[in-house]
Amino acid sequence: MKIADLETPALLLDRRRLTANLARMHDKAQAHGVTLRPHMKTAKSADIAYLATAGQAGGITVSTLKEAAYFIANGFTDITYAVGISLSKLDRVTKLQQDGARIAVLTDNADVARGIAARVEATNACFDVLIEVDTGDHRAGVAPDSAALMEIAAILDGVAGLEVRGVLTHAGHSYTCGSAAEIEVVAEAERAGAVMAAKRLRAAGMACPVVSVGSTPTAIHTRDLSGVSEIRPGVYMFNDVFQASIGACTIADVAVSVLTTVTGHHPARGEILIDAGGLALSKDRSTAAGPRDVGYGLAVGPGDVELPELHVVRVSQEHGVIAAAPGAGAVPFAALPPGTRVRILPNHACMTAAAYDCYHVIERDQVVATWSRVNGW
Amino acid sequence: MKIADLETPALLLDRRRLTANLARMHDKAQAHGVTLRPHMKTAKSADIAYLATAGQAGGITVSTLKEAAYFIANGFTDITYAVGISLSKLDRVTKLQQDGARIAVLTDNADVARGIAARVEATNACFDVLIEVDTGDHRAGVAPDSAALMEIAAILDGVAGLEVRGVLTHAGHSYTCGSAAEIEVVAEAERAGAVMAAKRLRAAGMACPVVSVGSTPTAIHTRDLSGVSEIRPGVYMFNDVFQASIGACTIADVAVSVLTTVTGHHPARGEILIDAGGLALSKDRSTAAGPRDVGYGLAVGPGDVELPELHVVRVSQEHGVIAAAPGAGAVPFAALPPGTRVRILPNHACMTAAAYDCYHVIERDQVVATWSRVNGW
Repeated sequence: MKIADLETPALLLDRRRLTANLARMHDKAQAHGVTLRPHMKTAKSADIAYLATAGQAGGITVSTLKEAAYFIANGFTDITYAVGISLSKLDRVTKLQQDGARIAVLTDNADVARGIAARVEATNACFDVLIEVDTGDHRAGVAPDSAALMEIAAILDGVAGLEVRGVLTHAGHSYTCGSAAEIEVVAEAERAGAVMAAKRLRAAGMACPVVSVGSTPTAIHTRDLSGVSEIRPGVYMFNDVFQASIGACTIADVAVSVLTTVTGHHPARGEILIDAGGLALSKDRSTAAGPRDVGYGLAVGPGDVELPELHVVRVSQEHGVIAAAPGAGAVPFAALPPGTRVRILPNHACMTAAAYDCYHVIERDQVVATWSRVNGW
Repeated sequence: MKIADLETPALLLDRRRLTANLARMHDKAQAHGVTLRPHMKTAKSADIAYLATAGQAGGITVSTLKEAAYFIANGFTDITYAVGISLSKLDRVTKLQQDGARIAVLTDNADVARGIAARVEATNACFDVLIEVDTGDHRAGVAPDSAALMEIAAILDGVAGLEVRGVLTHAGHSYTCGSAAEIEVVAEAERAGAVMAAKRLRAAGMACPVVSVGSTPTAIHTRDLSGVSEIRPGVYMFNDVFQASIGACTIADVAVSVLTTVTGHHPARGEILIDAGGLALSKDRSTAAGPRDVGYGLAVGPGDVELPELHVVRVSQEHGVIAAAPGAGAVPFAALPPGTRVRILPNHACMTAAAYDCYHVIERDQVVATWSRVNGW
């Protein structure tokens, strides 16, 4: 099938770019002697997880238990659920583990730790637990030098059926960086904080084999991963306009796009309408704060047409409005008649991909495969 | 089942509020002698469409052809597809019509109109066509007094198999209003523009039975619908914090919410973590420009706890951060321990509901039904 024969909107995945993105991160992990435990929250696809774990230990990271169930059904057995656990989800974790998979759960809270310990003592359940450490992102996690870290560890340590596997941190604040040099500084804080936390746990007698750091920007730009056991980037598989804006990739590395159709022209306003709006593109505006605000996505025309830079300047539910970037010149209406297929590179691949239940995998102008993805909770 | 037994995040629909919202719009349509053709783009659920069309002519509005297929499969036969058609979608429309449904399609473009006419002349297809009129929203549509309106009509009129059913407009700019009085002005512009366009078509010999206006705010606040045949509001069924912010409803009318669980406390920052982030709530920030910016949603605690006003101030993919509204006082951490269920009222119900494949219909603390919804394209 040709790309031109797809109904729109549709989610496209460029196989060549995906492969190159995966290879780049694989090589980075190898070069630093750390395990790559890819975060599947972006791709949510077994086909992609097989490729992303090739040559690695096979472990993956997930953001929901529905992802965990899907990946277990597709043969994965070593899973880190990298969002703080709630006690109400423990039964589901136990059930998922009954087929032989191990799911490491995460917390930064002493009450939750007490609840996990109580559950293990009252039942036959067993859990691997990671303690979440805050290395500057200030979303979740306890400080590496905090009393809270040791309090949580003490609650969990020594309980039969529980293992404190180690520490996990996510340097989400790398997303606010403006250059590779700034990202390097964040990456070192991420590494140093996680390593400090692990050392404190080890000094208290825990083996703490896992020292897990994350984020695509820090994984790309780190120079030193000493003391780290694994990295958990996710969006690097696809990249997006936001990642390009902070220097974690280039626009030529963006592997996903939304195929849309031109539905109308409004020359007096310099605007073209497409059939992809807030649902098809997401309402993510992460590029708004950066040096290159592309609205709701960067429009790329048919391969053989040279176009000025075009942005999706407004969206409603099923409508997108394309206009020329500031200073880019006039919209070439004649080159984009109604019916023309236009691709939109997303601001934030994780948000955009979530609207679709499959990827149309493309090579040049052909659709060469259709890969499923899992959504919801 | 009790609400407390649901896994989180989950989408809740309050039956009592839904019923009241539906009754209010039904009564409004009756009072003005117009047909209510509810826009199912928000609810995307047959169970809700049955209720929303009760006592009406039975026609509905949809925003995607996947919705059209779903509603046809659930017994609806009179459908307006209220997003500009592209020629590549006509075959699918024809196929959907083969089971006896009629789908009215929309355009504002002469080239598309020529393509529709050519398709009808070359095949046995037949289409009802509405011409989209711009009454001030400046998203899509031709001006009511434009030459383009008559050009499109002339292309379509008289072609065997085509019927120019009339005109359709959507006063999306009502969303930028700050008061009921402002919305009334927009509603009158919407009405007057649609009626003018219809009169011009009738003067050229077309029957033009459909004069269709839309938007929940204008439907709520209009005082005069003379000349209008139908209204197409959608979000009124659920309402949301944004609709409340522009005076189209009150917070007590918001029928949908996202059930979440507290996963962590960060008292030093005055923040509570929940397991609903950008995917579960959407990244819609429509309240940002208004008088009451609730971030990514308004948090409502367990029914028996009096809380200060709490907003979802930040989200990442699966994390939400709740903090007190400015001036609302301190976050009551003791009242919201990890594990507590908190509900989030969404900024924009259409965007938030799209992340879920079903509604948990609630009455008091019970889940009384589960209703499906259709997503995607």
